[in-house]
Amino acid sequence: MGTGVTIVAPSNLYDCRLGNSCFIGPFCEIQRGVSIGDYTKVQSHSFICELVTIGSHCFIGHGVMFTNDRLASGGPAMGDRTKWQSTHVGDHVSIGSNATILPVSICSHVVIGAGSVVTKDITKPGVYAGNPARFLRDISVP
Amino acid sequence: MGTGVTIVAPSNLYDCRLGNSCFIGPFCEIQRGVSIGDYTKVQSHSFICELVTIGSHCFIGHGVMFTNDRLASGGPAMGDRTKWQSTHVGDHVSIGSNATILPVSICSHVVIGAGSVVTKDITKPGVYAGNPARFLRDISVP
Amino acid sequence: MGTGVTIVAPSNLYDCRLGNSCFIGPFCEIQRGVSIGDYTKVQSHSFICELVTIGSHCFIGHGVMFTNDRLASGGPAMGDRTKWQSTHVGDHVSIGSNATILPVSICSHVVIGAGSVVTKDITKPGVYAGNPARFLRDISVP
Repeated sequence: MGTGVTIVAPSNLYDCRLGNSCFIGPFCEIQRGVSIGDYTKVQSHSFICELVTIGSHCFIGHGVMFTNDRLASGGPAMGDRTKWQSTHVGDHVSIGSNATILPVSICSHVVIGAGSVVTKDITKPGVYAGNPARFLRDISVP
Repeated sequence: MGTGVTIVAPSNLYDCRLGNSCFIGPFCEIQRGVSIGDYTKVQSHSFICELVTIGSHCFIGHGVMFTNDRLASGGPAMGDRTKWQSTHVGDHVSIGSNATILPVSICSHVVIGAGSVVTKDITKPGVYAGNPARFLRDISVP
Repeated sequence: MGTGVTIVAPSNLYDCRLGNSCFIGPFCEIQRGVSIGDYTKVQSHSFICELVTIGSHCFIGHGVMFTNDRLASGGPAMGDRTKWQSTHVGDHVSIGSNATILPVSICSHVVIGAGSVVTKDITKPGVYAGNPARFLRDISVP
């Protein structure tokens, strides 16, 4: 765990890596092996599962659910990790509240609208929203 | 805080105003400055942020997420309150579980379907649902 | 409560029935009268209300919200149980994270995609997703 980290109780964090100056709101669960970069904020009620990596300067809204199992074989992997998939989120990514993130890669400088369901990789900076999430517009990348 | 208020633990409430006979379920976070009217119920897992005002006789379902930041400049306001926007909910408004409410105004006598994403002001009584939420049908207003 | 049940704190469970080898994650609320079958897992942040019955070998993801009130008369039933409706979930049903389940029946061998809103009965095995949830494809039923 880095320096200057704030964790608001109650939250359940397991063996995960938090960068410097991270903020974790209440009622969160963050599973083992998760890595979160510097200055990233995770708001209340969010769940971050194993095999998720989040970059720095990100904003994870309230009630955001990450996943590592697409239930692709008609049910959950039930501990069969060979069926789990990873999620990678770049830097300066903002994910709106109540969004759901399937196992995907999201590049840096992306905004996901609140309530969206991200089902595919996002490889171009911009604003995405909807169920399934689609590209809405560009954003200015510094 | 009014009389006859019920708050189920664990919930995190900050410096907010609750009217008479309000009910707050478990696993809620209600931020400072929020105002909630008489006889309004907030169910479990809901998050109500700063700059939200809710009237009386409202029903806020489970897992409802309010927002005050549209991430409009390509990222979160990160404490720059000049970029935050307020939400006003009238009286006799019912919001279904897992709904997401962007910073909008919702007039009195409105029903928001479960799982909806409200992105625009609602100025006419009725039932609204979907992502984004759209008008479905009228309701009888007493 | 059956044998071999795991419940991760904090969770609020009322007078409900849990079968053998059930798992209940943290930050859940399960109301009175709920029945959950053997080997079923309920992940973090989920809410299961009165009048819900879930079979065996099911997987309820994170942040899944069940409902028993369609707000059909323009507002919540507010304790008038004659207006509540029940939900029945069969066996081997997997419900993805952040899904919302209106009062419906879901047959056995069904997968509900993450972030979906189930508004109608599901009577045929398969994968369903979207808001509202629609049939996507068949699954192989053993």
